[in-house]
Amino acid sequence: VYVDLEHTSTSLETAAMLCASAAGAGISGLVRVPSHDPSLIARVLDNGAAGVIVPHVNSAHAAAAVVDASRFPPHGRRSISGPNAVSGYRPRPPAELTEILERRTVVAVMVETMEAVEASDAIAAVDGVDMILVGPNDLTAEMGIHGQFENEHFHRAVESVAAACRTHGVALGVAGIKSVDLLKRFADWGLRFISAGTDVGMMTEAATARAQALRELDNRDRSSTDS
Amino acid sequence: VYVDLEHTSTSLETAAMLCASAAGAGISGLVRVPSHDPSLIARVLDNGAAGVIVPHVNSAHAAAAVVDASRFPPHGRRSISGPNAVSGYRPRPPAELTEILERRTVVAVMVETMEAVEASDAIAAVDGVDMILVGPNDLTAEMGIHGQFENEHFHRAVESVAAACRTHGVALGVAGIKSVDLLKRFADWGLRFISAGTDVGMMTEAATARAQALRELDNRDRSSTDS
Repeated sequence: VYVDLEHTSTSLETAAMLCASAAGAGISGLVRVPSHDPSLIARVLDNGAAGVIVPHVNSAHAAAAVVDASRFPPHGRRSISGPNAVSGYRPRPPAELTEILERRTVVAVMVETMEAVEASDAIAAVDGVDMILVGPNDLTAEMGIHGQFENEHFHRAVESVAAACRTHGVALGVAGIKSVDLLKRFADWGLRFISAGTDVGMMTEAATARAQALRELDNRDRSSTDS
Repeated sequence: VYVDLEHTSTSLETAAMLCASAAGAGISGLVRVPSHDPSLIARVLDNGAAGVIVPHVNSAHAAAAVVDASRFPPHGRRSISGPNAVSGYRPRPPAELTEILERRTVVAVMVETMEAVEASDAIAAVDGVDMILVGPNDLTAEMGIHGQFENEHFHRAVESVAAACRTHGVALGVAGIKSVDLLKRFADWGLRFISAGTDVGMMTEAATARAQALRELDNRDRSSTDS
């Protein structure tokens, strides 16, 4: 489950509840934070997120700061908290708890500018980064080809991020692409994570389909009235 | 938009916000209350609902109590409040405000037991009832044929409620039926309102479809690895 705090009004409290509920159902909750604020990254992870997705990471420097905020010493400078949904709430000796949380935590950084694409090799090289998530919507907007997900400049950008991921053993993810055909092509470059859709998108899709089916009912009523 | 308070943890505050938002988009918000409590019925209507759906109304007596709670004097005993989303928030003389709210308010009662089916003619005859909404899930459970929406006993029950609605000029509604084919048959009996689906249902439907499409991606990966 992907809980977005960048583009929603969802509170940290609700995000934590969603992650804890997901954890109870055996599902990992990933939370996208609205900024690079280290205190928010830490609170998200302290409260049940199995991972954090940080938007607009444009340089190795920024990626290193994200790792610092997300990982406990010696990998980073995240402050040590207590048991949570990710560790199963069980009391454990501090070192064991930290080790378990560390192992279960995913640090994902988003590449969504050309600057970030160019820095992707350096970003992927940052120790502690588990995934680079390409943000096609912002990236194509930045490239002046907004929403043109079949544009070859965009494909070349993804290909270059994919190469950086392969080189450094980092997972490649992509958000906001609906075309399964395009995702198949990205999978050839090593795509590992797909943001499959949003609640609003899925609801709209199903509601539209339902409305269409029911509208037939209405048309049929009208034609039977006409006849 | 149909906001359910019977089977959700949604607060009255959230329900009111949803109804006001819907009203702003030109959509009427109907709220199903969890009980017959007149104070809750009134607060739902006072805060932006264009109508109230009251579950488990088994007799003309119960229907009359719902009308009492939902309609201003002389039709009922609802206490008079101020302008709201339904009246467009504009200040108006009390009698004009009341008249507008009264005209825009839908009172729907749910028939979901055999007792209620048998009383449906008397219920539909209660002045101030706008709609009878059949609850197929509870009704078939009560009839010992839970979920058998093609069972002829259930159809006969709906037919008898439909006849009562036609006699007294009350709208007929049905909830929880997904089969467009069955809805078509009910439409022949005068069906006017369909509860088209729930957020959870629609989200699950779209998410399942999406997951299936993406699983093909996975299968293809595996087969290309196998070969």
